[in-house]
Amino acid sequence: MSKDKVTRQDSPLSRFIAVIPAGGVGTRLWPLSRAAAPKFLHDLTGSGSTLLRATYDRLEPLAGNRVLVVTGNAHREAVCRQLPEVQDADLVLESEPKDSGAAIGLAAAILHQRDPDIIMGSFAADQVISPNDLFQDAVREAIHTAAAGKIVTIGIKPTHPSTGFGYIRSGASLHIPGAPSAQAVVEFVEKPDEEVAQQYVDSGEYVWNAGMFVAPVSLMLKHLEANQPELYNGLQEIAEAWDTPNRDEVTARIWPTLPKIAIDYAVAEPAAAAGDVAVVPGTFRWDDVGDFASVGRLNSAREVDEVTVLGVGARVFTENASGVVVSDTKRVIALIGIKDVVIVDTPDALLVTTKQHSQRVKQAVDALKASGDFDVL
Amino acid sequence: MSKDKVTRQDSPLSRFIAVIPAGGVGTRLWPLSRAAAPKFLHDLTGSGSTLLRATYDRLEPLAGNRVLVVTGNAHREAVCRQLPEVQDADLVLESEPKDSGAAIGLAAAILHQRDPDIIMGSFAADQVISPNDLFQDAVREAIHTAAAGKIVTIGIKPTHPSTGFGYIRSGASLHIPGAPSAQAVVEFVEKPDEEVAQQYVDSGEYVWNAGMFVAPVSLMLKHLEANQPELYNGLQEIAEAWDTPNRDEVTARIWPTLPKIAIDYAVAEPAAAAGDVAVVPGTFRWDDVGDFASVGRLNSAREVDEVTVLGVGARVFTENASGVVVSDTKRVIALIGIKDVVIVDTPDALLVTTKQHSQRVKQAVDALKASGDFDVL
Repeated sequence: MSKDKVTRQDSPLSRFIAVIPAGGVGTRLWPLSRAAAPKFLHDLTGSGSTLLRATYDRLEPLAGNRVLVVTGNAHREAVCRQLPEVQDADLVLESEPKDSGAAIGLAAAILHQRDPDIIMGSFAADQVISPNDLFQDAVREAIHTAAAGKIVTIGIKPTHPSTGFGYIRSGASLHIPGAPSAQAVVEFVEKPDEEVAQQYVDSGEYVWNAGMFVAPVSLMLKHLEANQPELYNGLQEIAEAWDTPNRDEVTARIWPTLPKIAIDYAVAEPAAAAGDVAVVPGTFRWDDVGDFASVGRLNSAREVDEVTVLGVGARVFTENASGVVVSDTKRVIALIGIKDVVIVDTPDALLVTTKQHSQRVKQAVDALKASGDFDVL
Repeated sequence: MSKDKVTRQDSPLSRFIAVIPAGGVGTRLWPLSRAAAPKFLHDLTGSGSTLLRATYDRLEPLAGNRVLVVTGNAHREAVCRQLPEVQDADLVLESEPKDSGAAIGLAAAILHQRDPDIIMGSFAADQVISPNDLFQDAVREAIHTAAAGKIVTIGIKPTHPSTGFGYIRSGASLHIPGAPSAQAVVEFVEKPDEEVAQQYVDSGEYVWNAGMFVAPVSLMLKHLEANQPELYNGLQEIAEAWDTPNRDEVTARIWPTLPKIAIDYAVAEPAAAAGDVAVVPGTFRWDDVGDFASVGRLNSAREVDEVTVLGVGARVFTENASGVVVSDTKRVIALIGIKDVVIVDTPDALLVTTKQHSQRVKQAVDALKASGDFDVL
């Protein structure tokens, strides 16, 4: 992406630039996903692409190579290997994690510095979406809605009363040209209990909050300035230095001082209260791959009897077994008479659990931390 | 052991020489036990000794270093490392497996060549026995019984109606000095079904056949000659050359031509029919470590919560889990919410099964064979 201003064209689509926050270890996918090899650097769908690469490819028809990636300093090399298209100036490296407010906020500030008319779209690097054309349709509607002066979130039509996601309550249709399904957002609500989740689903008014935002950078920054002035000021200072020789010096000085806050609290919720947020409901299939049970669900890849196998090197033999095998090795894995098992086989750590218990992997990681076995975390 | 004749003393115990057949891959303990590293070369009890070394140590108070080991050519180095005391002339290396008739028969023939008065005792290298003094008491009784002209098997008092072992039906007491518990053997019977096994146990007349024989070598050979003249003649020819420079040449020529037959059919059963077999019931604890469930039972070693852990390098973390972990690696192994699981972790193969299914490991190995994955067998 050049530093020159984006060429103005008739369609708001030409103002679009994608931002990919590639962060989060994905502790519930340990030992496959870990600090040195987080979730977004793995192929969890058996597609042959890492989640990061698949995210980039999904956005490419909309953004071309106008993509900014925000990731941890430690992942620089791996991210560049996955995304050789991304230039140095478009790779934002966090020296320490500062939550999504600073990460997405800095992207907005850098882009605003380059061209205040940019519409940014932020899409996490570790989600699984299909089919791509339905996703792209929703993003196009979101861009048109953003061009009408909204911060737009793409919500997911619930397939079941999940208690693992936040919900978005949608209101009246906005009747925006190019965005027939855009609606006002009434409110964001936290993860509900099962009964409430069922009510949400039954009402038809609620969609899952998938953390996808499309917005004019100027509107993002307006709400950030109003709600988090300290964060805003720090990000502005970095953004002003970004495309200058002072980038590294200023970033190194300011970044560690920034407050940690999620973009939801820093921008989305106050903006919703101000009536500035819209939602485009997505009808594509979406999964945040929160645990290994979902890895099993996602994979239409290789099946050995009733066992879903993820990993090109694994040689899996089963007898009267079912479940998920995720392999990062070339070992022979034999499963005999064991049902709904989840096996994650990596060179230095092995996890054996059940689909039912796969949400509890985080506890095992905490126990390992407590024991001092940091080498495999 | 020197080639000179055993010095005659008053007690038949001075005529005793131990034979340790160290064979059998132990397929049901795959992938820990395999062709290149069979069961007897593993420490399956957490004692710090391999089963082979423990067998030798258990016999040492009775036999001193008068021990003959019969094993596969491929295991020469490993056996010598485990048993540095064993001299070249006392290590019988099979160029190919020929079943127990040839293995134990050749030991008998070699020993008979050295001294026809020797009483041999054959004890497989892959069994677990405790306490040693009760075992040694039984062997002493068996030696006295053998000195009275019997082939003596040491039977195991059943602890449950096992369908996995053959049984020995005992008859009248033999009233042999030094062997108060020696009884005549009425017959050997094959592995029974559950109902029959229960009748055996209830009757009090039956013991498990643990495959342990103590006998004058001359009597062993007499029955072998009568029942398997071809095998007998071949073994005699090797034995005559054994302690000469022609050992290797003759063995290489004859061994491959020998018939395959179990010692039970070649000697024990016909000898029993002739009234020449006695039994000494053993009251020690005995296990043939037939599967990983028994590995779990045997190990008083390390317990992590309800998980028995075998393997010095393994770092095992459990949450709400039970079962057996056998580890040949230094990997972290995390078990979450999984019960009665059996995990065997080796550098190139991983087995995950349940205690209930651990007898079926053989089928998995057969499937691997069929697939051509011989490298891990």
